[in-house]
Amino acid sequence: MTPEAAFIAALRSLAPHPAARGLADDCAVLELGGETLILTHDMMVEGVHWLPSQDPADVAWKLLATNLSDLAAKGAQPIGVLLGYTLAADNTRFAEGLGEALAHFDVPLLGGDTVHSPGAQTVGLTALGRATCKPVPSRSGARPGDSVWITGPVGAAMLGFEALCAGNASADTSAYRRPVPRLAEGRALAPLVSAMMDISDGLLLDASRMAEASGVTIALDPALIPVPADLPPARLREALSWGDDYQLLFTLPPATEPPCSAHRIGMVRAAGSAPLLLGEAAPSGQLGYEHR
Amino acid sequence: MTPEAAFIAALRSLAPHPAARGLADDCAVLELGGETLILTHDMMVEGVHWLPSQDPADVAWKLLATNLSDLAAKGAQPIGVLLGYTLAADNTRFAEGLGEALAHFDVPLLGGDTVHSPGAQTVGLTALGRATCKPVPSRSGARPGDSVWITGPVGAAMLGFEALCAGNASADTSAYRRPVPRLAEGRALAPLVSAMMDISDGLLLDASRMAEASGVTIALDPALIPVPADLPPARLREALSWGDDYQLLFTLPPATEPPCSAHRIGMVRAAGSAPLLLGEAAPSGQLGYEHR
Repeated sequence: MTPEAAFIAALRSLAPHPAARGLADDCAVLELGGETLILTHDMMVEGVHWLPSQDPADVAWKLLATNLSDLAAKGAQPIGVLLGYTLAADNTRFAEGLGEALAHFDVPLLGGDTVHSPGAQTVGLTALGRATCKPVPSRSGARPGDSVWITGPVGAAMLGFEALCAGNASADTSAYRRPVPRLAEGRALAPLVSAMMDISDGLLLDASRMAEASGVTIALDPALIPVPADLPPARLREALSWGDDYQLLFTLPPATEPPCSAHRIGMVRAAGSAPLLLGEAAPSGQLGYEHR
Repeated sequence: MTPEAAFIAALRSLAPHPAARGLADDCAVLELGGETLILTHDMMVEGVHWLPSQDPADVAWKLLATNLSDLAAKGAQPIGVLLGYTLAADNTRFAEGLGEALAHFDVPLLGGDTVHSPGAQTVGLTALGRATCKPVPSRSGARPGDSVWITGPVGAAMLGFEALCAGNASADTSAYRRPVPRLAEGRALAPLVSAMMDISDGLLLDASRMAEASGVTIALDPALIPVPADLPPARLREALSWGDDYQLLFTLPPATEPPCSAHRIGMVRAAGSAPLLLGEAAPSGQLGYEHR
């Protein structure tokens, strides 16, 4: 067991409250005063989650976007955010990027904390949302016979990251720098899906997590998975485990069609020898980023 | 203007929502579905907010306690917390300490995030509570003629920190390592106070913040301020600005007595030449920790 897995197992024993969903979902789901509150907190670390050379405005955008993506997976309407911030050399660009992103997604900043740190810059954000439908979608509701869907391509963030590293100024790196959470799609899908999550850590890893949470096997057809037009075909397997795309992965009961643009990429089957099949074989190797 | 002050001023312009209270209060106060939600997020950094030699269990306790102290200042009942955690060499003791603290204060862990970091360990916590009375106390309600009170001594954390640094095994260092948020006192006081806050950053700095937020002068009588029995009298001024004591500072209208153990330490006056007087003179020098 990795140190992270051991730590999360220890935390899980501290989180028996039903709102915590066993720390196995994207968000906490808390009933409060006639509302259902959706809560998530994600952190990002310089040199781990972003390149030290990146514009801090993009870091701020991504911090907000990744947290809102967790709300999108619950079909939630964002209410507001709290920021945890360690001061850096350039704080102005971070504040500007955060302002752009808050305005773009129409979410207010409600509070937070600013501290000094001698080490790598670390930023955290807590996002609160309100559920727009009940029951709130989870990862665990996929049933044999359901179809499996994704809202858009995977691999765009990988290509954007590589262009950014290569200093390719003509390339569009926005998929990596400024991901767009699928908030409207999440709200439209929430009343219909049997399971839903965002695929921050890579399609294969996140699909296997959904399969395990649901006690089923998810069979993906690699020919159906949408990828960017400029992805070399030989790099498909890599794109499927790279992550950072923030699309929504969801399952629909038989004969249900999605109310938004989406791609059918597979089927749910009764639990078989492996939680995940890719073209009828269990994929080998790393399925995604385990340590984001 | 310090980089932190400039950054916070920039954030303030992004937080016009009334729930944010201008980022000038201990917590956000959000009306939601018939409840009033109280939200706070505090971070701690290794080498800044704790000694690298400290037991991680104490770090976990303090992280929870400092956030709950913000809820106490609002008279709030804690609902739950989300943890942001960068992995360290020893994660087991952190989880044990967090478990002890959650059980002690009867608060559930609801979610969070765990990440890797190459630098100083950084931990953050978001605490949610529900208001137990309306209006929710703020820093800005102190009025001339009100009396000024504190729930307990200041300086105990300073002495505990020094004993810890000196490796004095016989000394009681718990005031620094394991502060106790004044949750019950906060709830009892909330319906009565004209203003309330916790004094995490030092009595003088926090009292001057309350005076400025309220547009008054607060006059403290140094002879009335409770200190630990073992504080050398010559170190009183130092204790008043050291911080980390997590007592509640509050003001009461004339003739109102506190419903809990507390010490009257001064009076509120109409705004004079300085927001804070200590024995009739404006205190000079550093009033507290500006960068916690």
